[in-house]
Amino acid sequence: MIGSSAHITQLPGLSPGTLVHVGKTRSHPVRIRLVQFDEKEVREDEAVLPDGELPRVSEGRVLWIHVDGVHDPETIEKVGVVYGLHPLTMEDIVNTEQRPKLEDYETYLFLVMKALSLESRPGSRLQTEQVSVIIKPGLVLSFQEGNGNFFAPILERIRSGRGLMRKRGSDYLAYALIDAVVDRYFLVLETLGETIEDLQDEVVLAPGTATLQRIHAMKREMLILRRAVWPLREFAYNLLLGESAIIDKSTVLFLRDVHDHAVQIIDSIETYREMTSGMLDVYLSSINNRMNEIMKVLTIIATLFMPLTFISSIYGMNFHYMPELQWRWGYPAVLILMALIGVGMLGIIRARKWL
Amino acid sequence: MIGSSAHITQLPGLSPGTLVHVGKTRSHPVRIRLVQFDEKEVREDEAVLPDGELPRVSEGRVLWIHVDGVHDPETIEKVGVVYGLHPLTMEDIVNTEQRPKLEDYETYLFLVMKALSLESRPGSRLQTEQVSVIIKPGLVLSFQEGNGNFFAPILERIRSGRGLMRKRGSDYLAYALIDAVVDRYFLVLETLGETIEDLQDEVVLAPGTATLQRIHAMKREMLILRRAVWPLREFAYNLLLGESAIIDKSTVLFLRDVHDHAVQIIDSIETYREMTSGMLDVYLSSINNRMNEIMKVLTIIATLFMPLTFISSIYGMNFHYMPELQWRWGYPAVLILMALIGVGMLGIIRARKWL
Amino acid sequence: MIGSSAHITQLPGLSPGTLVHVGKTRSHPVRIRLVQFDEKEVREDEAVLPDGELPRVSEGRVLWIHVDGVHDPETIEKVGVVYGLHPLTMEDIVNTEQRPKLEDYETYLFLVMKALSLESRPGSRLQTEQVSVIIKPGLVLSFQEGNGNFFAPILERIRSGRGLMRKRGSDYLAYALIDAVVDRYFLVLETLGETIEDLQDEVVLAPGTATLQRIHAMKREMLILRRAVWPLREFAYNLLLGESAIIDKSTVLFLRDVHDHAVQIIDSIETYREMTSGMLDVYLSSINNRMNEIMKVLTIIATLFMPLTFISSIYGMNFHYMPELQWRWGYPAVLILMALIGVGMLGIIRARKWL
Amino acid sequence: MIGSSAHITQLPGLSPGTLVHVGKTRSHPVRIRLVQFDEKEVREDEAVLPDGELPRVSEGRVLWIHVDGVHDPETIEKVGVVYGLHPLTMEDIVNTEQRPKLEDYETYLFLVMKALSLESRPGSRLQTEQVSVIIKPGLVLSFQEGNGNFFAPILERIRSGRGLMRKRGSDYLAYALIDAVVDRYFLVLETLGETIEDLQDEVVLAPGTATLQRIHAMKREMLILRRAVWPLREFAYNLLLGESAIIDKSTVLFLRDVHDHAVQIIDSIETYREMTSGMLDVYLSSINNRMNEIMKVLTIIATLFMPLTFISSIYGMNFHYMPELQWRWGYPAVLILMALIGVGMLGIIRARKWL
Amino acid sequence: MIGSSAHITQLPGLSPGTLVHVGKTRSHPVRIRLVQFDEKEVREDEAVLPDGELPRVSEGRVLWIHVDGVHDPETIEKVGVVYGLHPLTMEDIVNTEQRPKLEDYETYLFLVMKALSLESRPGSRLQTEQVSVIIKPGLVLSFQEGNGNFFAPILERIRSGRGLMRKRGSDYLAYALIDAVVDRYFLVLETLGETIEDLQDEVVLAPGTATLQRIHAMKREMLILRRAVWPLREFAYNLLLGESAIIDKSTVLFLRDVHDHAVQIIDSIETYREMTSGMLDVYLSSINNRMNEIMKVLTIIATLFMPLTFISSIYGMNFHYMPELQWRWGYPAVLILMALIGVGMLGIIRARKWL
Repeated sequence: MIGSSAHITQLPGLSPGTLVHVGKTRSHPVRIRLVQFDEKEVREDEAVLPDGELPRVSEGRVLWIHVDGVHDPETIEKVGVVYGLHPLTMEDIVNTEQRPKLEDYETYLFLVMKALSLESRPGSRLQTEQVSVIIKPGLVLSFQEGNGNFFAPILERIRSGRGLMRKRGSDYLAYALIDAVVDRYFLVLETLGETIEDLQDEVVLAPGTATLQRIHAMKREMLILRRAVWPLREFAYNLLLGESAIIDKSTVLFLRDVHDHAVQIIDSIETYREMTSGMLDVYLSSINNRMNEIMKVLTIIATLFMPLTFISSIYGMNFHYMPELQWRWGYPAVLILMALIGVGMLGIIRARKWL
Repeated sequence: MIGSSAHITQLPGLSPGTLVHVGKTRSHPVRIRLVQFDEKEVREDEAVLPDGELPRVSEGRVLWIHVDGVHDPETIEKVGVVYGLHPLTMEDIVNTEQRPKLEDYETYLFLVMKALSLESRPGSRLQTEQVSVIIKPGLVLSFQEGNGNFFAPILERIRSGRGLMRKRGSDYLAYALIDAVVDRYFLVLETLGETIEDLQDEVVLAPGTATLQRIHAMKREMLILRRAVWPLREFAYNLLLGESAIIDKSTVLFLRDVHDHAVQIIDSIETYREMTSGMLDVYLSSINNRMNEIMKVLTIIATLFMPLTFISSIYGMNFHYMPELQWRWGYPAVLILMALIGVGMLGIIRARKWL
Repeated sequence: MIGSSAHITQLPGLSPGTLVHVGKTRSHPVRIRLVQFDEKEVREDEAVLPDGELPRVSEGRVLWIHVDGVHDPETIEKVGVVYGLHPLTMEDIVNTEQRPKLEDYETYLFLVMKALSLESRPGSRLQTEQVSVIIKPGLVLSFQEGNGNFFAPILERIRSGRGLMRKRGSDYLAYALIDAVVDRYFLVLETLGETIEDLQDEVVLAPGTATLQRIHAMKREMLILRRAVWPLREFAYNLLLGESAIIDKSTVLFLRDVHDHAVQIIDSIETYREMTSGMLDVYLSSINNRMNEIMKVLTIIATLFMPLTFISSIYGMNFHYMPELQWRWGYPAVLILMALIGVGMLGIIRARKWL
Repeated sequence: MIGSSAHITQLPGLSPGTLVHVGKTRSHPVRIRLVQFDEKEVREDEAVLPDGELPRVSEGRVLWIHVDGVHDPETIEKVGVVYGLHPLTMEDIVNTEQRPKLEDYETYLFLVMKALSLESRPGSRLQTEQVSVIIKPGLVLSFQEGNGNFFAPILERIRSGRGLMRKRGSDYLAYALIDAVVDRYFLVLETLGETIEDLQDEVVLAPGTATLQRIHAMKREMLILRRAVWPLREFAYNLLLGESAIIDKSTVLFLRDVHDHAVQIIDSIETYREMTSGMLDVYLSSINNRMNEIMKVLTIIATLFMPLTFISSIYGMNFHYMPELQWRWGYPAVLILMALIGVGMLGIIRARKWL
Repeated sequence: MIGSSAHITQLPGLSPGTLVHVGKTRSHPVRIRLVQFDEKEVREDEAVLPDGELPRVSEGRVLWIHVDGVHDPETIEKVGVVYGLHPLTMEDIVNTEQRPKLEDYETYLFLVMKALSLESRPGSRLQTEQVSVIIKPGLVLSFQEGNGNFFAPILERIRSGRGLMRKRGSDYLAYALIDAVVDRYFLVLETLGETIEDLQDEVVLAPGTATLQRIHAMKREMLILRRAVWPLREFAYNLLLGESAIIDKSTVLFLRDVHDHAVQIIDSIETYREMTSGMLDVYLSSINNRMNEIMKVLTIIATLFMPLTFISSIYGMNFHYMPELQWRWGYPAVLILMALIGVGMLGIIRARKWL
């Protein structure tokens, strides 16, 4: 009996009862990795659902179940039922358009995060992937949409037995997962910083319409990053208040570190935002300046040639009695006059600093 | 004895005593649907007011009374008196220009929401309809302005007996009603998202005055959506604090879901808003760029032809002693001079990257 | 012994001791209306101050004293001394440049509000009038600057004995006065709404400098309305918290209604504000668009005629050896050439969508 | 042993030990006025420091010591040591670049305010002067930078024995000092209001670069006023919470009045700010409109004369076979043609509403 | 066993275990200065790590260990282990891209600040250096990136024995360190103030693209300063709440002073920000005004010469029957006509105030 609220693809108000995947269409096979460890040993396994068995949580050990792919509602439901998840939790796991959040379901904590990755092809579009984590004493469930390897280094740390990982409980493992997601934000931030420096040069040296579009593309990426980080800051703060019994006191210090990182990222985004608005000013005034340049050229040309053409048109008139036309030196005199006027005009233009 | 405050159509300060409908003129007959259910059975009926009878609330059952149309004050008053509503509640039900809100009248909770729907005709104008819900133990009263079928799927779920609906109390039914209203916001949001993508193409490829007006039309729709959602977020939060005795603990989790959705919508609107302001920048700079284009053409034309016309006007002068005019190759020489000047000017223009 | 702080017309720091009226000069005679009522009867009277007597507050009755005109400090002082008002209260009553506020002087509540009215002459300028209300058990004092009839309908309701008025205490009467003032804001809001719709048409169809000034005039009116409503929202909220012993529990619900209205007005103003900023965008871009139009015409004219004039100026040259001039079909050939160039130029212009 | 932090003129981190005056260089002799009063008598005196004696605080009396000039650290130190001031308080008194603030040093309250005055010469630049006030039971110390007469009226009130001054303690005297400073803000506000009205006319009738600079000068003055008032509002609020034992309950009402005034000033500044941004819009669009005017004239001229000049240049060509040239009525016919084209062009221009 | 999160240069999620320096590459040798003092004597020493010994904290004395350079993780780790620092603290010390913050690790307080300095070369770029301070009873550890002499004056004060330094505990020493960092901000602020005044002149007298870039460079510096000060204000506030047992009551007053300074700096930055946005307005309108100037010249030239050239082109036509051409005074008459038209045009231009 599971409530569904697949808001975007379904009619509103429909009867709940089936989990509906919301998000990008994915078809890769769902993989479930089982890792069980204590200070002495690590057991790794893979589960095949819906038919396979899922291990029980045993005291003194940490069980980590990582699910690659949430597009198969049946699998999620099976996992959920085995480990006692609330229907709304399962619904949120399969709906990948969630906002990052932390929810306390009393017997467990439920986290939704957005893992970011940069595509390597030019244009560097930001990819978002939803990561859900459930923390129970002795158990961590993690779900991700695609098949990125965000958590490979953590598995490595568990295997190697170095660091605190094997000595601590599920809350420390969860911290490590959160930290792995947040650390990727710094990579995105770094790329944004480089883009901003490129753009700052471009805006001053060779601004064009493409520049504007690149600025706005960057702003969009900043927005995505901010939407991923902002709620995380909030919930890291809530976690570190230490009110949940699931989080150990000694882990709280590490969560404060996560909170710090989130604040630092938001801070940098604010700085980038200010720099971006500065770039927009420079861009817009450079358009205006270029207009000024063009207008100056036009005005210089007109100022030079309109009076001269007027003079020559006078002596192109066909009046019978135009004494200048008979003068021996009339023509050279007019040419000299024109030259003088031309030089005078140029002088005035120079004086106005248009050349 | 009911206070009226039909603010807009009446003189202020008038004596209270009659309920006055405020809002769009409606004339469809008011329908009152009665649904009574417990885990075993469902009874449906329709009431004809003001003469008909209204059922009593009986323990162990949930009574849902849904009123289609609030433009008949007499009907509302009858319902209100039977179920013990405060005069101000009745006043708010008939005044359809309310802001969404939650009010705790101790014996019941009173909710006002805005149901949104998109008209199917082109231009996709947003329609707002006020929905009021009253929650008492064992009783849910719902009122809507028009005759939309927002709640048909819920009736269906009651009939079918699937899900939690029949097993829970009036608070769960109320949650279902709120959820149905909120789910429609996602439809609106989706349409807004599509409009934004259209506009982003339009702004880059073929911006015009109509584009600007479409951007502002979209901003207005965003505003309507935001005004509907913002207070809802607030009151969903208040509900989930679980302070009201009318809301059961187990329903609080579902209300948290509603709150989440509201936050998610507000979040998306913020993103859209940023994107819109980006589009305005692009639009304005595209106007300036087009101006630059036009000015460039003008300047190119003038730069090319003004000097040339000046030269030909010189040899159009009628001085008697102009030796060049007698030269055998004078004419071709001038033509070649002009060609050289023309090519030179084009070269300068090219160098400035105007062509 | 009354402190004065007639800030604007007096030197700062002067010795207190006299009440000084601050605000528009008024000279109409001050009228004092006395209304005493309980559930059974209503007694109305008029007092002549400073010589006349003022009635005492008697238990079981509500005494309402309404003063029309605060420009005569003597009268206010007399009233203040009789009913035990603090010097600062009296000072605030005669100083009509107060911000709306609520002050709790323990034995009474002191409210300052701004009553708004729209002048009927064209241009619809907003008029502000300060209304002060003092609430004591069994006593309501109200003061207004001018001689508007804001409270006539309330007197009517007292006389008629309908509604709750005669059954409730001074706090309900005070609520009715506040409500009468707030209801007038909706009239102003409605007018603003209409102005906005007019302006939206004007901005699209026939924008001019006057449009801009009308937009800003409207913004000013929005500002006045907001300044009147914003503090009222705050103090209505404080009142409805029900901490004052002077306000009865049953009146609190009505004050919540006032609070709601204030919030609703502020909300509408925010919407109008967004729409106004949209109009400014449209206006500014319409100026730019018109500039573009003008420049296009200029460029089209120049693009058409400069090359043509150049060609004809060539054949206006007086070289002796210009073979074309002798050709029989030279003239028509040139005309045809010109026509072709003209058509070609028009074609290019068309291709650029300038025509 | 006094810590110094003369931040701007000294190297940071230097050893504390001497008070260093920070601010405008002043050289007028420091005057110390001693006023001691109770309900029966007033004793006035002047102290000569560093050699002179300072009176003791005696019960039942209020001692007010006013120091004109804080540029002599020795004097301040002497006063500070006699009346038991904390080193940081003394440091803040001589550093006249403080932000307005209220500090509770348990045995006394320390206030810093900014007294504003307008210079009478044209351009009306705002002058800021720092006023520090220390309130102890039975003692008020006040310090000001220059030799303005802000507090002369208060001395007058003490001498005359009218009002509450002589009946109340040092807290009421301190209130009177604060009130005298705040009342001066209203003068500044009034001047700002007048400047805004002038500017509004100027912006519509004769906008120029000077207008823009005047707008920004006014914004700067608004900023200074706001920086002086904003913290004052805050600390007046803190004072009126009545938590300090030094402030008597009956004085709290008067401090609420000060708080009200601060709020009112901030409110007005917000209004002025909105009006200013409106003026900037009008100014910028008037520049654009003037550009439009100029371009229209240019376009009209070109539209009229380019085609005409082209026609006449045609008949200026020297082809042998141009039949029109021989026609008897050729010349007048061309003139009429030109006139018709001119009129036609004017008609088109009219139709576009450019004339 | 120390967790590393060198976010920017390492792959995310790596196993912790080594401290990794993040920030500018530095290679100067790490110096460790040991200062131990009580009221009677001062002992100074230098430690050579990793081999050397570090002194113990002894009661009644203050031990100050200052580390110049954090790019050698081994040294930091040694210091950290000796004095019992948490791994996350050590990580934050070597990662110099922290945001200023205050962390309470129960046995000690950990502060991160940004020391600012201005490079003396033209362009005055702001240099940021991270300073970390750890406060324990009887012990202060301070770490800085480079080899600036921020704290030399404090060492001087300790040596000289003047002031409170030798009489107080480690919290007062820590306050002195914080104060030394904050005092440097005033120097930066002063430079910013001077730059703004320069820019204000430049914007009015000789605005160019470089001006815009200088404005934005200044905005960036303001941003850096604000990012350094803003969190400091917050944590100074937290410190002065006096909740930490490590901070003595008597030191709280000094921390209030630090808080005041931070608020004052933020306040000034806000003012500068408003002034900067004013400068941008002036700059943009000056570009537009210059465009207007150019367009005026163009229009004047065209208005003068187009009609005149048209007239002379009329008399350049070759019609056989043009009676004016035979007139004796035709030529001078046309010249006079042209002069009159020229003067008339100039008159119109003058009337429009374009000259």
